[in-house]
Amino acid sequence: VPKKVKVGFQGELGAFSQEAVRQLLGDRAAVVPVQRFEEVFRALKSGTIDAAVIPIENTLAGSVHENYDHLLQFDFRIVGETNVRIVHNLIAPPGVAFAKVKKVYSHPVALNQCLRFFADHPSVERVPFYDTAGSVKMVMEQRTGDAAAIASGVAAAIYGARILRRSIEDDRQNFTRFFLLNGKRRVLNTRDGVKTWKTSLVFATRNIPGALFRSLSAFSLRDLNLTKIESRPLRGKPWEYLFYVDVEGREDDPPVARALGHLGELADFIRVLGTYPKCASR
Amino acid sequence: VPKKVKVGFQGELGAFSQEAVRQLLGDRAAVVPVQRFEEVFRALKSGTIDAAVIPIENTLAGSVHENYDHLLQFDFRIVGETNVRIVHNLIAPPGVAFAKVKKVYSHPVALNQCLRFFADHPSVERVPFYDTAGSVKMVMEQRTGDAAAIASGVAAAIYGARILRRSIEDDRQNFTRFFLLNGKRRVLNTRDGVKTWKTSLVFATRNIPGALFRSLSAFSLRDLNLTKIESRPLRGKPWEYLFYVDVEGREDDPPVARALGHLGELADFIRVLGTYPKCASR
Repeated sequence: VPKKVKVGFQGELGAFSQEAVRQLLGDRAAVVPVQRFEEVFRALKSGTIDAAVIPIENTLAGSVHENYDHLLQFDFRIVGETNVRIVHNLIAPPGVAFAKVKKVYSHPVALNQCLRFFADHPSVERVPFYDTAGSVKMVMEQRTGDAAAIASGVAAAIYGARILRRSIEDDRQNFTRFFLLNGKRRVLNTRDGVKTWKTSLVFATRNIPGALFRSLSAFSLRDLNLTKIESRPLRGKPWEYLFYVDVEGREDDPPVARALGHLGELADFIRVLGTYPKCASR
Repeated sequence: VPKKVKVGFQGELGAFSQEAVRQLLGDRAAVVPVQRFEEVFRALKSGTIDAAVIPIENTLAGSVHENYDHLLQFDFRIVGETNVRIVHNLIAPPGVAFAKVKKVYSHPVALNQCLRFFADHPSVERVPFYDTAGSVKMVMEQRTGDAAAIASGVAAAIYGARILRRSIEDDRQNFTRFFLLNGKRRVLNTRDGVKTWKTSLVFATRNIPGALFRSLSAFSLRDLNLTKIESRPLRGKPWEYLFYVDVEGREDDPPVARALGHLGELADFIRVLGTYPKCASR
């Protein structure tokens, strides 16, 4: 029996990140829930986990900026991506009827993605909590009789709770993209059978007119497709920005490698965060 | 006596947004605190307020994405900007000594900007709350004897609370940029004495290689300076993006007007969100 890969993620058992781990590594993974994103990165650094799965953007809420910051601060390679369809369910302990629910706990992003449900039920109070699955765990422990949670169906099953309303999210086009990060030990990043790759990088430009335009020319003059660009504040330099870019192609494909060299001439700073198989559903 | 301008903002009295209102309109403003960002926009639409002040980005936390989404959905003009230096204080009811504090309530962004304080005081629990000033109001009402809040000094003064520790934020380079929005009645946007202007706009491109690069050429070929670019997910089209851009210059300056016309040819969609005097501290 091959040894399992210890994969850390933020949240409690049943979090959407756990579904991402399953999609990326299947049975090879032994999941390690961690409370905060920064702790996931620290665990990867200390070697207590072999790999990590972190959410990086949601089609409705946008990027998870904290993780972009951690990707820069820590120096781990992205070796995979996957997309998880987010389905939110209203979940309560057995015996709590829908009519009794007065408070609904969940992560603020999840609460904001179920606004129609709350508009239809104005007497129900939204209560921000640190985690979707964690809110199920909490309402199951406290059993106040009037509390419910919003989380995945898997979270309901794990904690023995009941689903009162299925799929209460406002928008079905709700996906979260996750990155798989390698620790010291290489756990993935095979070339076998992969046709399309992506490369993620971060760069900073001098704060002069046209600097971003010139930087992007490194890619567009080689007909390379940018699938994402994201700006983030540069710490310690108010109103200057870092740019996070995803480009189609493998880091060592000649056009990508040349574009990275060209960008190196134009930018103040550049770092490749990883190169990985493009997720099939993209 | 001229009639005061009713200016709505999200949060309780004493919120950082109230300082932004003061910087932008001084004594002309009568402040109207509103609980949620969307309600601020709705109040502006219904005419119960004359203008609104909303945070749009923070130098550490990045953009306030929800407000970018509201700017697109509602169709109000940005007529001003200002930057507020964010100073976080630990605040408790009179009589609560620092050694007694077990729980600290504040907005999640504020809690995340005081990580060094929490690392130095591991026995103190962070509790996310909907608002910084609102957390002062709440600890003053509840008086549990072990609760404190993180908020502005003004919030402490308004609610009669005491500052236990001043300026506990990790990074002094902490500024939030606010937009002033016009309702039906024009409240601002004079040309008098203003030398430098900015124009904010949003556009979407076809999802083809180089589309963003070509779109930015409308500005860079005219030597116009982009001070910000931000991508946001396009609702209903997973993995496609809108771009929010700030460019130096007034909307009706010939080079800016020509760039907007050129961008109109290249982009699928374009809307100018406003043109306004550039904030002096930028």
